[in-house]
Amino acid sequence: MLKIALPALILLLLAVFFRPTPGEYPRLILTAEGVGEIRNEFGSVPLFDASLAKVKEDVDAEMAVGIDVPVPKDFSGGYTHERHKRNYLMALQAGQLYQILGEERYAQYVRDMLFEYEAMYSGLPLHPMERSYARGKLFWQCLNESVWLVYMAQAYDTIYTWLPAADRERLENNLFRVVADFISVENPQFYNRIHNHSTWGNAAVGMIALAMDDDELLQRALYGLTDDGLELGVKDDDGGFIKVAGQKAGFLANLEDPFSPDGYYTEGPYYQRYAMYPFLVFGIALHNVKPELKALQYKENVLLKAVDALLSLTDSDGEFFPLNDAQKGMSYHSAELVTAVNIAYHYGGQNPQLLSVAEAQGQVLLDQAGLSVAMGIAAGKAEPFIKTSVNLSDGPQGQKGGVAVLRAGREDLTVVFKYAAQGLSHGHYDKLSFSMFDKGEEVLQDYGLVRFVNIGQKGGGNYLPENASWAKQSIAHNTLVVNETSHFGGDYETGSQHHSELHFFDAGNENIQIVSASESNAYPGTRKLRTLALIKNEKFREPFLLDLWKVDADVEQQYDLPYYYLGQLLETNFAYSNPRVLEPLGESSGYQHLYLEAQGESETGNAKFSWLGPNGFYSLTATTEADDQLLMARVGANDPDFNLRRDPVLILRRPATAGTVFATIIEPHGSYSPVSELALESRTAVEQLAIVYDDDNYTAISIADINGYSSLFVLATQSSSEDEQHSVVIDGKTWSWQGPYRYFEQGGSIQK
Amino acid sequence: MLKIALPALILLLLAVFFRPTPGEYPRLILTAEGVGEIRNEFGSVPLFDASLAKVKEDVDAEMAVGIDVPVPKDFSGGYTHERHKRNYLMALQAGQLYQILGEERYAQYVRDMLFEYEAMYSGLPLHPMERSYARGKLFWQCLNESVWLVYMAQAYDTIYTWLPAADRERLENNLFRVVADFISVENPQFYNRIHNHSTWGNAAVGMIALAMDDDELLQRALYGLTDDGLELGVKDDDGGFIKVAGQKAGFLANLEDPFSPDGYYTEGPYYQRYAMYPFLVFGIALHNVKPELKALQYKENVLLKAVDALLSLTDSDGEFFPLNDAQKGMSYHSAELVTAVNIAYHYGGQNPQLLSVAEAQGQVLLDQAGLSVAMGIAAGKAEPFIKTSVNLSDGPQGQKGGVAVLRAGREDLTVVFKYAAQGLSHGHYDKLSFSMFDKGEEVLQDYGLVRFVNIGQKGGGNYLPENASWAKQSIAHNTLVVNETSHFGGDYETGSQHHSELHFFDAGNENIQIVSASESNAYPGTRKLRTLALIKNEKFREPFLLDLWKVDADVEQQYDLPYYYLGQLLETNFAYSNPRVLEPLGESSGYQHLYLEAQGESETGNAKFSWLGPNGFYSLTATTEADDQLLMARVGANDPDFNLRRDPVLILRRPATAGTVFATIIEPHGSYSPVSELALESRTAVEQLAIVYDDDNYTAISIADINGYSSLFVLATQSSSEDEQHSVVIDGKTWSWQGPYRYFEQGGSIQK
Repeated sequence: MLKIALPALILLLLAVFFRPTPGEYPRLILTAEGVGEIRNEFGSVPLFDASLAKVKEDVDAEMAVGIDVPVPKDFSGGYTHERHKRNYLMALQAGQLYQILGEERYAQYVRDMLFEYEAMYSGLPLHPMERSYARGKLFWQCLNESVWLVYMAQAYDTIYTWLPAADRERLENNLFRVVADFISVENPQFYNRIHNHSTWGNAAVGMIALAMDDDELLQRALYGLTDDGLELGVKDDDGGFIKVAGQKAGFLANLEDPFSPDGYYTEGPYYQRYAMYPFLVFGIALHNVKPELKALQYKENVLLKAVDALLSLTDSDGEFFPLNDAQKGMSYHSAELVTAVNIAYHYGGQNPQLLSVAEAQGQVLLDQAGLSVAMGIAAGKAEPFIKTSVNLSDGPQGQKGGVAVLRAGREDLTVVFKYAAQGLSHGHYDKLSFSMFDKGEEVLQDYGLVRFVNIGQKGGGNYLPENASWAKQSIAHNTLVVNETSHFGGDYETGSQHHSELHFFDAGNENIQIVSASESNAYPGTRKLRTLALIKNEKFREPFLLDLWKVDADVEQQYDLPYYYLGQLLETNFAYSNPRVLEPLGESSGYQHLYLEAQGESETGNAKFSWLGPNGFYSLTATTEADDQLLMARVGANDPDFNLRRDPVLILRRPATAGTVFATIIEPHGSYSPVSELALESRTAVEQLAIVYDDDNYTAISIADINGYSSLFVLATQSSSEDEQHSVVIDGKTWSWQGPYRYFEQGGSIQK
Repeated sequence: MLKIALPALILLLLAVFFRPTPGEYPRLILTAEGVGEIRNEFGSVPLFDASLAKVKEDVDAEMAVGIDVPVPKDFSGGYTHERHKRNYLMALQAGQLYQILGEERYAQYVRDMLFEYEAMYSGLPLHPMERSYARGKLFWQCLNESVWLVYMAQAYDTIYTWLPAADRERLENNLFRVVADFISVENPQFYNRIHNHSTWGNAAVGMIALAMDDDELLQRALYGLTDDGLELGVKDDDGGFIKVAGQKAGFLANLEDPFSPDGYYTEGPYYQRYAMYPFLVFGIALHNVKPELKALQYKENVLLKAVDALLSLTDSDGEFFPLNDAQKGMSYHSAELVTAVNIAYHYGGQNPQLLSVAEAQGQVLLDQAGLSVAMGIAAGKAEPFIKTSVNLSDGPQGQKGGVAVLRAGREDLTVVFKYAAQGLSHGHYDKLSFSMFDKGEEVLQDYGLVRFVNIGQKGGGNYLPENASWAKQSIAHNTLVVNETSHFGGDYETGSQHHSELHFFDAGNENIQIVSASESNAYPGTRKLRTLALIKNEKFREPFLLDLWKVDADVEQQYDLPYYYLGQLLETNFAYSNPRVLEPLGESSGYQHLYLEAQGESETGNAKFSWLGPNGFYSLTATTEADDQLLMARVGANDPDFNLRRDPVLILRRPATAGTVFATIIEPHGSYSPVSELALESRTAVEQLAIVYDDDNYTAISIADINGYSSLFVLATQSSSEDEQHSVVIDGKTWSWQGPYRYFEQGGSIQK
């Protein structure tokens, strides 16, 4: 089809087609032409009609209670904070209702609320809560102030024509320009960064600029402040840099820098979701009002690609993988993703798979994009959203590592591998870490953040001390830790200079989805290559994951390899002892937050460990050396305010070794139901895992199952060439292959 | 309607209507007449057709693989155990398919399997696993052997007519009578008890007796062994009595004794679910074959009442409240409840509310009862299943305490209060304990059992040592513990002699659902009265629970009152200190399994504690005295095999007091979503809770909210008369009321 074959052409056609007539209002997001279409269609488009009815019910209920614009006082979670948030949403929605239904009472409501803000704003001091590096006035931080303006600009746009000119002048001079100046020229440390905070600030200034037709403000939005007076090296209260050498500013710079060409946002999907909203709405507003800037086509359509990237970074339930600082449970059901999916569908080539996501979201925007989605669904065009393995580069030019997602059998078993850059101030020190999901549930978890967003009792809803002392530390992740110190010594400046390197990614073989990447800077002098292979082999009951580390180092050091399994321990094949009292595992680098619950040693060369998770049984088999220790620990030590979850971990500790190899298989198997009480296939199928070859260039692992069947995995640890020929001799047999790896399904018998 | 007004008459009519012609087969559960109806109707009854298709798919798949009757070897969870379980289900279902579809291959499959058992059984020794007090041959315990026979009797019934007489004779003499004798005369310690084990045994012997028309076996099933040779006082391996003085035996005695007149089964709903199956199927088989015994009408229709009782003991998701030994997650989706609901609907007056439960179950039986349910659903007769507050007596005559369920707003907020008898060998030492559910999720949990049913790696799937050392102990429950010892000293013989006493139960007022009961034997010399009131008051945002203890004792002793909240602690209004290392809270009575994580004291007379649970925010406010300690602890100490969940608890400890009062409010409020990140109403509305009056006859509690509004709850602690007039003087005001309690909504201002 033309639509799929020629997306760029379509984009161009759409861009022309959806361009509003100059001077017409509304014009930012909901356009005058869109209003015309909606008035023609609504009443016979179920999902649009339901969304309209829901919004009308909410707004009518709020209007019945009356407007409240309280004097700012509270942190997130407190009344004044939540009230002001609710106000801007209500204003935007009332404005949409005015346009669609033509009932003047909605316009009056928006006007009255705006004038209450107008009356108050100029006299407001800084917000009384002093925590932020950029305090707001309505809110404790400029960030929320900017969000307020992004919404209010749209609300204003909907009643612009209806308002008398004198009212417009008063609002623009006494409110909108005052807020725009406050968040920009008065707070350059907030406004002039490469950061999601600045994106919101830039979009806020830009949206009101487009609504007011103010070109000076628009330039400020697009290109930042020309003279911000900021010193290099200053940091914000999350520890992120405010200004580094050669830094650009403004919306276009923020679009350029944190997004990779694949649409991955360097802070991770949780913040991408949050940052996408201002990017997209300002992008669409520019597209509508200033089409000559080609905002949607910027950097080869990166804004629309970013929506695809974001959707691919979700589990089976649509929840985002919690990379870096991320609240678990956030998903494509969030309001920002409704916006993203509606816009991506309407302005990005009508991909019918997006319609099934919109169906799951159960709501659409009250504008032409939402109408378009709802009409597509009503016409039966929705197709299942298929997620496959994907490798997303990080960095402005895609040269700073990346994030790979391996999916076996579509997406039921999913491995997320992070070999990216630091991820700005929300990044964690977890090079080469991974997590694993089965049918939407975590099997091996990434802890996420330590924050109870918007819950006032927990530190005002802000980041808690344990976010830095625990969640960001390397030991809190499923990755290798050397000498009980975090990667880069836990130093943000150092971490920000480096990224891991892709060795190879190959999703071309249905039976083995594989990614391999190296990290040489986290611990100077140590090169670590981690290879994750999701393998389907008909001899095994289920796909399993092979996790292989090849570590090069010249000095003896201690290695800890943690696996944050979730579930109830069932069985180990090694003996262990339990201490009578629980003590912290260490003193710093996150170790002070782990209690040691048991300690054991494997005498067989393989440590086996199985647990019952939410979707069945899971077993881990790891190769061990003579001195290796198996530590069973639990999060929660030195946690005076009970901010941490008491989650368990198995740590494989190798006390004193230079270069070394770790090989582990994680195998989901069987099922359990507390209703039928049937336990199916509750034991591992892995009999023996062995490192059968290892030198400077190759590592080989043999996998024997309980039926005596064995297979062999061989890896070229230095060469990633797809063409290069390799061979190794193992026990007198020669094994030959081409390319960086090979999985020999019959490892015990085939000789080449 | 007649159906509802005259259930007994309807039962009688149905009994006549559904009676099979003598000598016809099948006749036990699926009857010849039922087969005729099914053959007329199927193909146009969606739920029946879907159930039939599913069963056919399963059986066809098994038949394609072929029959396997392995030599018995394994515990639950092992191959031979699970294979023999699967076999009897397949045999029954193949028999049903033969009757419905008329395809002879199904009858052949049943016959061939039965002859494999016939060839093996006589030569079998006792099962090699020696754990049970009554070892089986096919299985490690006679219990499973009996289940096998209950199913196989039905399978045999379906092919009885089709089999040549010589085959029948061989099966009956070499297999069925041998099994029946083995589980009865050869195992009287299993067969002749009042226990769910014996019920299975009795039903097994009875079902095969009815299939074979063997009156001697039928008498043995109904009335037990006349001379069992058992000594008094012997116990089984769960610690339950095998024989006590004056004990009757057989099916009718088991029906008489463990069921109360309200249909509550003394072991609790988890075991009731398990025990119901043999009760119901043998009851229906008797109804069909020996209608003159009026099995269904026995003890005023107790079998059908028991189905209602069981359904009322479920949360919003249909999961059973985990009273006594109970695996969490077991629900009315289990196969036993499909049987129970189908039978209760078909034979019990066609209650249309049962149809919505059957719809949720998503399957029906392949017999006339299942057809009847599926046809009712297809005809659109289903009505929502409404659960309300209910008080279920315990004991054969309903005189041994009971279980009360309080529900506010139908069933969203649910309190389960246990003031029952010991509950046989699966009982816990938790007099006057309670648990609390919100929208189907646990807010204050009952721990349940310590067992991973059928998971071989965990002690063969059997009860684990921590079930006795932890789960049964008083401190593991939300109830009062004196001097760190369990109720009755944790002694089963003593506990079995006593039960708590209802003070009153009143669900007549929509705004206050209340139950009150006392316990005087758990600690000799101490009388404890616990009153739980679920209160709706429009001044509060949500219904809340008042938990009030009035304790009479002459000596000073230590009291521990635990609340097993589930979720993440948000805030306390008291200071506490955290130990550097975690140590067990005590040495025995379950205390050895708790780690002390923090310890604090309240200086305000009220301890407040709030947490984030799965459905929002919860706050607890408790009155405190000067020496009270607040202990924050966690399950998991002395748990070498990781058999316990690491769940938290708040314990209010009063170190040295004689008579005393505890008053606590548990208040659900607000909501939180990780998607919208909106935190609504995250703080308690309770400002101050105070014991404003207390003497030998009355206790009064005032509740002040954060807006300065106050209410008063008064309780007559000795009199439960509904007519008696009471009055107390508090701060010079006289408060008068009639009956055992009164909630004055405006406690600060009304004077009577």
